[in-house]
Amino acid sequence: APSTVNKSAHPFDKPRLEALLNRRFFYAPAFEIYGGVAGLYDYGPPGSSLQSNIISEWRKHFIVSENMLELDTTIMTPAPVFETSGHVARFADWMVKDVVNGEVLRADHLVKGVLEGRLEGNREARGLEAKAKEEGEDAKKKKKLKVKVTAVKLTDEVVKEYETILAKLDNYSGPELGELCRTHHIKNPDTGNDVSEPQQFNLMFASSIGPTGQHPGYLRPETAQSHFLNFSRLLDFNNGRIPFASAQIGRSFRNEISPRAGLLRVREFTMAEIEHFVDPEDKRHERFHEVRDVVLVLLDRHVQAAGRTEVMNMSVGEAVEKGIIANETLGYFLARIYQFLLKIGINPQRLRFRQHMANEMAHYATDCWDAEIENSTGWTECVGCADRAAYDLTVHSQKTGHPLVVRQALKEPIVSEKEVAEFDKKLLGKTFRGDAGALSKLVESMDESALLKLKGELAQGPAVVSTPGGKEFTLAPELLTIERRTFKQSIREFTPNVIEPSFGLGRILYTLLEHSFWCREQDVERGVLSLPPLVAPTKVLIVPLSARQEFDPLVHEVSMKFRNAGIFSRVDDSNTSIGKRYARNDELGTPYGVTLDFASVQNRTMTLRERDTMDQRIGSIDEVIATVTELVQGTIDWDEACKRLPAYDGVQAVE
Amino acid sequence: APSTVNKSAHPFDKPRLEALLNRRFFYAPAFEIYGGVAGLYDYGPPGSSLQSNIISEWRKHFIVSENMLELDTTIMTPAPVFETSGHVARFADWMVKDVVNGEVLRADHLVKGVLEGRLEGNREARGLEAKAKEEGEDAKKKKKLKVKVTAVKLTDEVVKEYETILAKLDNYSGPELGELCRTHHIKNPDTGNDVSEPQQFNLMFASSIGPTGQHPGYLRPETAQSHFLNFSRLLDFNNGRIPFASAQIGRSFRNEISPRAGLLRVREFTMAEIEHFVDPEDKRHERFHEVRDVVLVLLDRHVQAAGRTEVMNMSVGEAVEKGIIANETLGYFLARIYQFLLKIGINPQRLRFRQHMANEMAHYATDCWDAEIENSTGWTECVGCADRAAYDLTVHSQKTGHPLVVRQALKEPIVSEKEVAEFDKKLLGKTFRGDAGALSKLVESMDESALLKLKGELAQGPAVVSTPGGKEFTLAPELLTIERRTFKQSIREFTPNVIEPSFGLGRILYTLLEHSFWCREQDVERGVLSLPPLVAPTKVLIVPLSARQEFDPLVHEVSMKFRNAGIFSRVDDSNTSIGKRYARNDELGTPYGVTLDFASVQNRTMTLRERDTMDQRIGSIDEVIATVTELVQGTIDWDEACKRLPAYDGVQAVE
Repeated sequence: APSTVNKSAHPFDKPRLEALLNRRFFYAPAFEIYGGVAGLYDYGPPGSSLQSNIISEWRKHFIVSENMLELDTTIMTPAPVFETSGHVARFADWMVKDVVNGEVLRADHLVKGVLEGRLEGNREARGLEAKAKEEGEDAKKKKKLKVKVTAVKLTDEVVKEYETILAKLDNYSGPELGELCRTHHIKNPDTGNDVSEPQQFNLMFASSIGPTGQHPGYLRPETAQSHFLNFSRLLDFNNGRIPFASAQIGRSFRNEISPRAGLLRVREFTMAEIEHFVDPEDKRHERFHEVRDVVLVLLDRHVQAAGRTEVMNMSVGEAVEKGIIANETLGYFLARIYQFLLKIGINPQRLRFRQHMANEMAHYATDCWDAEIENSTGWTECVGCADRAAYDLTVHSQKTGHPLVVRQALKEPIVSEKEVAEFDKKLLGKTFRGDAGALSKLVESMDESALLKLKGELAQGPAVVSTPGGKEFTLAPELLTIERRTFKQSIREFTPNVIEPSFGLGRILYTLLEHSFWCREQDVERGVLSLPPLVAPTKVLIVPLSARQEFDPLVHEVSMKFRNAGIFSRVDDSNTSIGKRYARNDELGTPYGVTLDFASVQNRTMTLRERDTMDQRIGSIDEVIATVTELVQGTIDWDEACKRLPAYDGVQAVE
Repeated sequence: APSTVNKSAHPFDKPRLEALLNRRFFYAPAFEIYGGVAGLYDYGPPGSSLQSNIISEWRKHFIVSENMLELDTTIMTPAPVFETSGHVARFADWMVKDVVNGEVLRADHLVKGVLEGRLEGNREARGLEAKAKEEGEDAKKKKKLKVKVTAVKLTDEVVKEYETILAKLDNYSGPELGELCRTHHIKNPDTGNDVSEPQQFNLMFASSIGPTGQHPGYLRPETAQSHFLNFSRLLDFNNGRIPFASAQIGRSFRNEISPRAGLLRVREFTMAEIEHFVDPEDKRHERFHEVRDVVLVLLDRHVQAAGRTEVMNMSVGEAVEKGIIANETLGYFLARIYQFLLKIGINPQRLRFRQHMANEMAHYATDCWDAEIENSTGWTECVGCADRAAYDLTVHSQKTGHPLVVRQALKEPIVSEKEVAEFDKKLLGKTFRGDAGALSKLVESMDESALLKLKGELAQGPAVVSTPGGKEFTLAPELLTIERRTFKQSIREFTPNVIEPSFGLGRILYTLLEHSFWCREQDVERGVLSLPPLVAPTKVLIVPLSARQEFDPLVHEVSMKFRNAGIFSRVDDSNTSIGKRYARNDELGTPYGVTLDFASVQNRTMTLRERDTMDQRIGSIDEVIATVTELVQGTIDWDEACKRLPAYDGVQAVE
């Protein structure tokens, strides 16, 4: 039987994890030898592999499984696109400057940090229990500045006022934030200096396209706009039918004011976005039945608006029925997001879906749920799932004059009747000459009842009509006929709505690393990343006992066999002990290791080591390769592998 | 036996291909509904899939097969990095402006276009055969401006002068190009207006990082720099050993002055770059024997310098032996590039390797070979393979003070002896006080023979030494001892050289589309893209006879079975004839199609259609799926498939 493992012997230790990630080059500050740039990170070999395995699973789980239309579009975007989309005017944060040293701070983070610090100080002064624990679970915690807490008692009135301000924080405009700073004497907590009036800072990186400097451009802050701009082509590719989804994995940029949170808040990031185009009158989803019973942890907007944070465990089916999740398509994607995150190794106990409150939604969204994953900084939004309604398609269509609509043949044509006036054009021109046009327009603009009245009058003889300006015309009956006609509308034209699941891959990757990290019970210095085989950078480590040439043919054979089985392996023949090589690969999250020793050369056997338990089994080379292949493909688990391969109790101490 | 196909019945028709690519949304001008931006393109679903299949094969062929270390680094780069690398000063083109309408032109393209136009006019005037055909094969053709040719006779002297200018074109500085325009009355051919003095235009997109505007940045024009900056981490990851290679697939940007050539010259592009770090004293490659016999078409710099373009067919082994290709590592990569391009479907008859002449090399390169692929615009550089020597690592190391070197234990330590002087520090200070430091430096800087001479003198008594400035010191024998000592050097420290294969994926993709395109002999309107199954966007089209519900379970079954076999399929149940659906998928390059009809429901049979021949075979559903799987995996060819499955001669006319 496999060994049991105690993964929680040591409490989570963030600096220890960060040291590991840096040492093993999962990622590192970009331009490090030039001093680095805040918010820019490079992924090294294990980080790149982990990311590319997550992306590959994402592609299978969403694009392939749902036949989505993949796009690969440009990052550089001419300014008019983002003027129309609203990003130039609204994709901005308010910043203030320290008036002495020029340090730049986000205005809302500053107000929040300082007022929360004062409330904390008040609680201390009153001898109340600190609220820190509870705050630690708050979604907004990550935005907080580090503020030194001083025990100063506040009046009940002031406490109440601060709490009200904090509750409405996302609602304040820049000038209002400036007013708050003045009224409440809010200064830069690092220096004690005053801060400037808040200024808007657009979060898009600006550039200029071409040599003349006359074509401003921005680096996209999301991939979504290019899906919308290509909507007509996509619809055409899908033979004119909806619903369908487009998908894109690509780089986006946000020029954050002062990023400080590692991979959780960066200036350049890889995202994966789906734009699911749907009939606004029918947001059912044909595969909804597949996810109806998936139970999610939900934190809806009503609970939050009441200032509470209790979550509900509820099936997607029930949540849609009760209207907590607005429609089937939104519910379908929340469940699929949940399934994806579990598949790659996110701990379901630390995953919840939080609905945005009205005042925190992006300018284009009508509803939004975030998949939030808990980590050492609190609950972090890792996937957003927004209903952008028809906002983007409508504004681009209005701006460019290019219709971004679906034209659908109606199964049952809509039949209607109405009165229609028709002039004898020749007679009209002869009689009214220069006024003919105005007269014709006047009659065309008449509604049903006016036309009926005129029809009645003409049946009696000449009738008088007058323009809004008061000019009168007398119409002879032979000048025009008014008749009831039948109209048949067989095409319905509409702008689709868009449901947008949007994944921040760096945030998911980082939280996954936190969820996977633990230290061996017997030695806290020995860190392990228990990444699932599906996403682990390397699946198998091949460890020859030494770098002696006699192992070369076997190493080559085993490598080739793993490659042919589609299993990514690496050889570690470095000049160090087997134990140290395995310890290094525990840090790299490599789930399996095989050792080639003198017995392998003689008997064609190989030992197999499992990362978490450090259990060792033994079998013939081909047996072990077959077992590892099934383990990596997920068709068997380690228990089953242990039934197939006997335990190894060789004399060589390989740990 | 399979049918034979005549793919060259119709001459290549570029507008026809472009219409197909646009209609099927392989790619389209980005921001098209906003009027588009020159040099920016979006890839639609088939283009994205084609690109991602090429990338996936690239990853297998290079990264996996050679255990390269993959990186994923940021695009946004602080300015100092590109100041050091030389890009700020030198990554620029000279441009001129039309003095009336402000149109911007590349100065070298302008001179070339106008002078070539005049030479052409001269040939016309003299009744000589146009040189156009031959020029069409010239690598530089693509850069030519469209110039109206007027038949004007030139003197022999002027012809000679123009030809000399054109031959040296890449060597002229900006001011020299300006001088040429004045001397030869070169004007904007579109308007006849004068042009301005040439100004340098840097091809990097500029931006600014952070809210203060104090940190200028550039979008990278290549991914290479970030490999160099991370060199120490990479070396460490590779346990301190070289040679090794890092690899990265990512977006880069070049703000071209006036891009006009579709995907061949764009402002934003995906590239795949390898930086292979190698010992400058040993550029052998351990897998060179695998490619020794690969025969390449080579166009070396000596042939070109002599003004000729004859190529040689030569094995890589011979070319390295003869010194035509400088070393094994460069030769190895040229062969591997060749193998990769053939694998994805590039026509080997239209592929050559051209060595750069000294004057056209990038500022960092010491040798460079381009894989050039012929297409309708001429020979186009699609892969560059440069030896960057130690240039980049050296300049970054000097700038940052961070050593970017390899430290290697020497197998045989180098033992040397030399004379060493050692002062009695106390006595030295007491005797010479303020001059002690200068005196000590003076003796340290002495070479072997000077030390020996001093040693001899001191053996006799006090000795006099003098500084370069002429100041003299008298040294007592007890002040210092000079002894012969033994030194052992066991570490060798060196800056590695870099061999860089760099792939422009968009150029490869476009030329592949040209090489794959042809029209059916019987109907020029029916275009086909004969993409190899390995890279085709969709491998199999599943075509139910109609959208009737009775086909649904079978369609579902066949889709699932293909998915489980790892074969990417799509269902086309659109409301149009089977013939039209197949014609659409011929344009999409889908190599196989299976049809589900009433016989399928009754007998569980399915027909299989091959794209190029339009041959139809029939078999049981499982037989057909197994056959297609092998076809796509490349383990059998269509001839073999025809042996397994009988021809289909059903009554339904499905074409």
